Amino acid sequence: MVEAVDNSLMELLEKEIIEILDAREHPKTLYDYMRYHLGWMDENLKPIDLYRGKRFRPILCLLVYYSLSGVYDKALPAAAAIELIHNFSLIHDDIEDRDDERRHRSTVWKIWGDAQAINAGDGMHVLANLAALRLRDKIVTDSKVLEILGILNETVIVLCEGQYLDISFETRRDVTTVEYLDMIYRKTAALIESAVVTGAVLGTEDKSVIEDFRTFGRELGMAFQIRDDIIGTWCDTKSTGKPQGSDIENKKKTLPVIYTFENCSHDERSMLDEIYEKAVLNRADVDYVIKLMDSKGAYDYAVETASSYEKNALAALKRIKLDTEAEEKILNLTDFLIKRDY
Amino acid sequence: MVEAVDNSLMELLEKEIIEILDAREHPKTLYDYMRYHLGWMDENLKPIDLYRGKRFRPILCLLVYYSLSGVYDKALPAAAAIELIHNFSLIHDDIEDRDDERRHRSTVWKIWGDAQAINAGDGMHVLANLAALRLRDKIVTDSKVLEILGILNETVIVLCEGQYLDISFETRRDVTTVEYLDMIYRKTAALIESAVVTGAVLGTEDKSVIEDFRTFGRELGMAFQIRDDIIGTWCDTKSTGKPQGSDIENKKKTLPVIYTFENCSHDERSMLDEIYEKAVLNRADVDYVIKLMDSKGAYDYAVETASSYEKNALAALKRIKLDTEAEEKILNLTDFLIKRDY
Repeated sequence: MVEAVDNSLMELLEKEIIEILDAREHPKTLYDYMRYHLGWMDENLKPIDLYRGKRFRPILCLLVYYSLSGVYDKALPAAAAIELIHNFSLIHDDIEDRDDERRHRSTVWKIWGDAQAINAGDGMHVLANLAALRLRDKIVTDSKVLEILGILNETVIVLCEGQYLDISFETRRDVTTVEYLDMIYRKTAALIESAVVTGAVLGTEDKSVIEDFRTFGRELGMAFQIRDDIIGTWCDTKSTGKPQGSDIENKKKTLPVIYTFENCSHDERSMLDEIYEKAVLNRADVDYVIKLMDSKGAYDYAVETASSYEKNALAALKRIKLDTEAEEKILNLTDFLIKRDY
Repeated sequence: MVEAVDNSLMELLEKEIIEILDAREHPKTLYDYMRYHLGWMDENLKPIDLYRGKRFRPILCLLVYYSLSGVYDKALPAAAAIELIHNFSLIHDDIEDRDDERRHRSTVWKIWGDAQAINAGDGMHVLANLAALRLRDKIVTDSKVLEILGILNETVIVLCEGQYLDISFETRRDVTTVEYLDMIYRKTAALIESAVVTGAVLGTEDKSVIEDFRTFGRELGMAFQIRDDIIGTWCDTKSTGKPQGSDIENKKKTLPVIYTFENCSHDERSMLDEIYEKAVLNRADVDYVIKLMDSKGAYDYAVETASSYEKNALAALKRIKLDTEAEEKILNLTDFLIKRDY
């Protein structure tokens, strides 16, 4: 993140989120669970300053607002709300998926149990709304604050819908590409779209600019998720250290997997069905799936699909005709998100 | 509830909540889980019209608004939001407490698993905010809608704080009466207070009337929870069919239990500690605790404490000087809540 975003902007954002949590005093431990998840505390709830999330969603919101207004300040409460929404959903997703680790650290439920993790996530969900209500202190009109609250809450319900679909896909082998794209829109792209749209709505009254930003955010979000699918399947051949095919091992319904299910012969399909019926996949299973994917051109298909979303995103951004400095800031971050290989 | 509240008012409220859920179409099953929890569907997700919750919180909101305005309509979105907050927290509490049943039916997590139950609760939490945003369609000013959203979100965070405290008390034997009262304010009374306050804020600009209503709601909420504690310990001797001492069996830190811990001799305390260290209490343990409670006057103490909150609530209501018909409607419901024995 450092290479793409100015440190002082990250500091402004962290300060805003810290203030929102610090406004609640009792019981401190509940908020310390949230501080742990946000990367400000260790497992013993002692302050650290080690590893935080990428915070790219709120930074996008701030950069979009900056591109329209030349300042960051007024958008901070909305940016903080976006990051809190993202993190509350991670705390709950980790319980739902029974993930032990996130960002190389134990998950909240793993340390403090399901009950307090559900509760900490619920609390952070409220803090997102309380964060957005702080827009009132920035002399934003009441009507605009309500518009932002409407956008954010619409986004969170769409997120829940995406999470429902994602979980329900786990036990299905007939998921189509169309269903998959609808699911990742809800689960991933909608929040990235909202990060961009809230920045735009705060910065301008021009409906066509807002619509172009919406397209930019949505298409960027779709590309981001498909890149994630590609990394989860082919990452070590292409760069970093994760085991190749980790998404396959977890039987995730990613775009290249669904494409392969849709484009294989009857015999290959029977073999795939057999593999995906197993409780646990072994190395040979994973290798078979990857080989089959490669033979069907699933990698190229996924890369082309991601690229096409990226092109749409960049075309929409171009249409807005921002000044060069502001556009460059957004493009740097976009580039970082698209080209990342972890 | 039938005896205390007009059926047509219940129907108005149900219609409002039904509309909020029906506004979301996909994926239908996610919303059907919520419909099941709200009592509109059975376990096979087929429509039924059998058993619903008491809905007394939103009805309180509507009656308070009616007492100030002579109509119900404008407060419906706030009332619906209150009921959705209550029910989202129940869906999550049932997972946290590992309760198999609620209102004599299986809980959502018990039927559809933790992951979708967490998700359905999260979704209903958002619907509460979306419900409140519908106040805009009732020609309520933007500033008032924001005020209501502020009150509701402040209430939900306080609810999460109460839930944190309640869970943390389970493993403690040194909980004081003061800590207990703070916990039940957060976990139970705050939402009842908000039901009353939102009705009042929508109905008047008079700060002193709003403050009297706040006192009425808060004190009623405290009394309600302490009555619940009394029922959970002595219910079958005093009336209905639950096993006597069910709260003791579950080692709940209720007011009469805490009072007994605070007022027993050294030897009695050792015996209590021994019992509360056990993983499972037997009948003899429960009987010992009830006998000790009775010898310490815990029943009278709890009844007197509840009565004192009730008196404060009624005195605050009296101060508002409502017209007789409106006051009577509120008193009927209050009476029903206070005198209930189940």
